[in-house]
Amino acid sequence: MQVWKTYQEENKQRFLDELLQLLRIPSISARTENKADMFVCAEAVKDSLIKAGADSAEVIPTEGHPIVFGEKLVDPAKPTVLVYGHYDVQPADPLELWHSGPFEPVVRDGKIYARGSCDDKGQFYMHVKALETMVRTNTLSTNIKFCIEGEEEVGSPNLAKFVKANRDKLKADVIIISDTAMLSMDTPSIDIGVRGLSYIEVEVTGANRDLHSGVYGGAVANPITILAKMIASCHDADNHITIPGFYDDVVESTSEERKKMGQAPFDEASYKKDLGIQSVWGEKGYSTHERTGIRPTLELNGIWGGYTGEGSKTVLPSKAFAKISARLVPDQSSVKITAKLIEYFRSIAPNGVTVNVIEHHGGEPYMTPMDSVAYQAAAAAIRDGFGKEPIPVRGGGSIPICSLFESELGLKIVFMGFGLDSDNLHSPNEKFDLFNFYKGIETIPFFHRHFAEMSK
Amino acid sequence: MQVWKTYQEENKQRFLDELLQLLRIPSISARTENKADMFVCAEAVKDSLIKAGADSAEVIPTEGHPIVFGEKLVDPAKPTVLVYGHYDVQPADPLELWHSGPFEPVVRDGKIYARGSCDDKGQFYMHVKALETMVRTNTLSTNIKFCIEGEEEVGSPNLAKFVKANRDKLKADVIIISDTAMLSMDTPSIDIGVRGLSYIEVEVTGANRDLHSGVYGGAVANPITILAKMIASCHDADNHITIPGFYDDVVESTSEERKKMGQAPFDEASYKKDLGIQSVWGEKGYSTHERTGIRPTLELNGIWGGYTGEGSKTVLPSKAFAKISARLVPDQSSVKITAKLIEYFRSIAPNGVTVNVIEHHGGEPYMTPMDSVAYQAAAAAIRDGFGKEPIPVRGGGSIPICSLFESELGLKIVFMGFGLDSDNLHSPNEKFDLFNFYKGIETIPFFHRHFAEMSK
Repeated sequence: MQVWKTYQEENKQRFLDELLQLLRIPSISARTENKADMFVCAEAVKDSLIKAGADSAEVIPTEGHPIVFGEKLVDPAKPTVLVYGHYDVQPADPLELWHSGPFEPVVRDGKIYARGSCDDKGQFYMHVKALETMVRTNTLSTNIKFCIEGEEEVGSPNLAKFVKANRDKLKADVIIISDTAMLSMDTPSIDIGVRGLSYIEVEVTGANRDLHSGVYGGAVANPITILAKMIASCHDADNHITIPGFYDDVVESTSEERKKMGQAPFDEASYKKDLGIQSVWGEKGYSTHERTGIRPTLELNGIWGGYTGEGSKTVLPSKAFAKISARLVPDQSSVKITAKLIEYFRSIAPNGVTVNVIEHHGGEPYMTPMDSVAYQAAAAAIRDGFGKEPIPVRGGGSIPICSLFESELGLKIVFMGFGLDSDNLHSPNEKFDLFNFYKGIETIPFFHRHFAEMSK
Repeated sequence: MQVWKTYQEENKQRFLDELLQLLRIPSISARTENKADMFVCAEAVKDSLIKAGADSAEVIPTEGHPIVFGEKLVDPAKPTVLVYGHYDVQPADPLELWHSGPFEPVVRDGKIYARGSCDDKGQFYMHVKALETMVRTNTLSTNIKFCIEGEEEVGSPNLAKFVKANRDKLKADVIIISDTAMLSMDTPSIDIGVRGLSYIEVEVTGANRDLHSGVYGGAVANPITILAKMIASCHDADNHITIPGFYDDVVESTSEERKKMGQAPFDEASYKKDLGIQSVWGEKGYSTHERTGIRPTLELNGIWGGYTGEGSKTVLPSKAFAKISARLVPDQSSVKITAKLIEYFRSIAPNGVTVNVIEHHGGEPYMTPMDSVAYQAAAAAIRDGFGKEPIPVRGGGSIPICSLFESELGLKIVFMGFGLDSDNLHSPNEKFDLFNFYKGIETIPFFHRHFAEMSK
């Protein structure tokens, strides 16, 4: 047994208790009311790095939520691994669907239930505990830096400025991110790509005030109806996206690539059973894995307008709103697609209404080359940790800062995600398996050892 | 000057103060939390009838909110006028758009601002004060009964049972309702019809929980997108309603009728300016007055689903909801149209989602014959009160109990509305002009006198 496995066994309850402590902080980056919690959480992350054996760690203010930076430098001759993660979490609502409080973590049936348990506190904390393990067992074979930000869930609006101003501080040989999933614990996989993101909010205004739907209904444009027509026009009957130019820059996968993807295990019956759906859904001509991996999508994230309370109100509302986001694949550009989305919604607005579109955030798609040292070291670590060859997959989610890191720091990124798609990310009852948490802490040191060896 | 005009002049401040007191009670029938307020309001209405000189008045419980009944019987040989009105009001939200509290009535620029000021507390209270005026000035020429209910805004679910059980109590020669509008105070008009109503709520469910829009987006049906497509499919490009059979029973107006309607004054420029819109909107081939008068409509009253808070959340929601209502014209049937709406939304649900439709409430359309004694008496009263011939118009709103009264009591209904379309019914900053309030109290006694004379 590895010396670090023994260390983990002796400390596993404390590792868990520390994570639960971190999960108790409601670090929701989207909510102004949680601003103070963001600072509390950043300080806690900093303290955890120091406690784990980092030489130094600091909370660095930005115009938004602070960034935590820490490092453990063992030898300038050794390669440096930069761990990126985020301590901010998604909003927890709808609260009524949680079986226990989103910020009152509990362990049930071997799983940690809490907002952020998987995305991403539980995952970046594996690296903190792996650092501690390697330091205490004298097995650290690389230098390590940590960049843990507090704005990933709102599109990292202040990270670019930070990275550009701190190129030396962030200097490294590879970036590792644990913010993705595996196919399953029995079928380890490594994401070789994440999708990009464009996120907009559309506001449709009809009359200057809410009206009586009997007195004015039928004679004044209804912003909900107009918005519904706009949304309906975004996909055709085959669920292709109809926004002009949307697919222009999409790199189509070769039939070879698609054949390989088709070999990844997928059990449609249990997928449907888990989600409680009668049938899957999506763009005609593509499989479920392809729809979430190699194809761009356009999803409605929220909609509201008019009377939404108990009972009935015969109102013709003044306004209706929608939150809409697209997931992008290489070589789509988030900047270009956001512009196309905004232009589209403005252009289809009929005369009776005004349409205002605001931009929430975006990020470019990113792919990791499989022949890179980083990928090879990650694959070797998975083999050591899991005893199986990892399957390369393309993830559906987005980590908007990947292309920024690559262009600003000249670094490749490797994804070592230990979550599961079914971990209810961004949903009520987010969870993280204890097995995955401990397996991650055990596997990460293999990565450092392989990366150091392969970099020689 | 009429003796009752003098009495009003001497008591006008008290009349107003009493109405403001009534407007302070948040009698929102749709909200469970206001249940106690409904009883408080019913008691206040009962007390006001006694104070105004009614022989008796009572608060009568129903399975929902209570009904207030009161009467002043002067002579069995004289005709009896039954006043119908409602003390319940619409919900007040969105609260943030009110310039003063919806239940903190204020008088600004000669207008009373409060929820219910026009719809319908301010209007039925004119009849209470007209009763007082006629009693105190010995000018009452009819018997009067009052039936003031507390569930009009939620579709009067318990009124039918009450009417059927109390035919003797409600026995009368005509029903008068002040719950509609005039074209303007310079252009008095009488509604000769109200539209019917069908009101449903549609719930679309995709997956059994909210999902990460990156991990599942594009592969699982999005209930907001599906709901938007369903809503979009309800109207064609000419804004005709596409629901099968929707227009089957519509009595088309003759070109003669439409020509007459076209003579009612309508200033499109000021209509648009008042509403802050660039252009009117609606069914092709019909004017604005026709769209709200002789044509049925289908309006979205509310929509919600997914993340509707501050900032962004990349969620693929489990559910989306819409509140949808149709306004109906003769000879459409609310029961039939509601069934068609429910059937339509169920039938177009694609495989990836489940659709549940609930029925809120409905009511049949109603027309008053212009050759009736009731209409003729109302027209004569308007001539006396305003010095002008009233224009007959078809109102866009609904008073669902009209057809019930006609069928159960064998009575014709006359609408004497003193509100204005621009009174922000069902909207923030509902108002009622003091001028209209006092003019109504002054005009109503003319109606009683004419009706008594014409009934001889």
